[in-house]
Amino acid sequence: MVLVLRGELRLTAGKAAVQAAHAAVMLTLAAEKRDASAFDAWQAGGQKKIALVVPTLSDLESLERTARGKKIPTVWVEDAGLTEVAPGTRTCLGLGPAPASEVDAITGELPLL
Amino acid sequence: MVLVLRGELRLTAGKAAVQAAHAAVMLTLAAEKRDASAFDAWQAGGQKKIALVVPTLSDLESLERTARGKKIPTVWVEDAGLTEVAPGTRTCLGLGPAPASEVDAITGELPLL
Repeated sequence: MVLVLRGELRLTAGKAAVQAAHAAVMLTLAAEKRDASAFDAWQAGGQKKIALVVPTLSDLESLERTARGKKIPTVWVEDAGLTEVAPGTRTCLGLGPAPASEVDAITGELPLL
Repeated sequence: MVLVLRGELRLTAGKAAVQAAHAAVMLTLAAEKRDASAFDAWQAGGQKKIALVVPTLSDLESLERTARGKKIPTVWVEDAGLTEVAPGTRTCLGLGPAPASEVDAITGELPLL
């Protein structure tokens, strides 16, 4: 599971953590519903997660298209905008869970958050 | 849902985000199993989350005892220790989901991460 934040928003560490947590929860609930046995395997494997960062929304959108093209599950986090950003702002893209090799192929070059 | 990080570990933003995401996923799966209708209500209410910080492990342990005394669900995140901390290190305490008034009573004074 890869949680990709949008660097240009310059979120605080706490706000970024919450966006990543939103994405992880949404991906988890979707995975559980979609394929319980694959989900159990991911859980048993330590529920691996990593947080990465791209500069802009356009980078995030491009990553989402690539992931969808490869059938990797994706989810957008839109912030309610009560604090640091405007309502409905896309703050984070979640990817997975998916085999490490598939995810690495599209996110392996991105820097850690 | 409150995700409380351990300040003394001085985790990077990315590492902190992953710990918070682990806690959120664990709390979510436990809540779903424990009480589906309360879980649905929390989901429908926007799945509120906040990330806070306490200085030390002892502060985190004290918070966990208080939460358990008030029947607020808790979960510990222990890091596999592949990168920034030793294996098994407790990095984050997750609390909830629970009514805001109950959670605020025990975490309302803590600083944002």
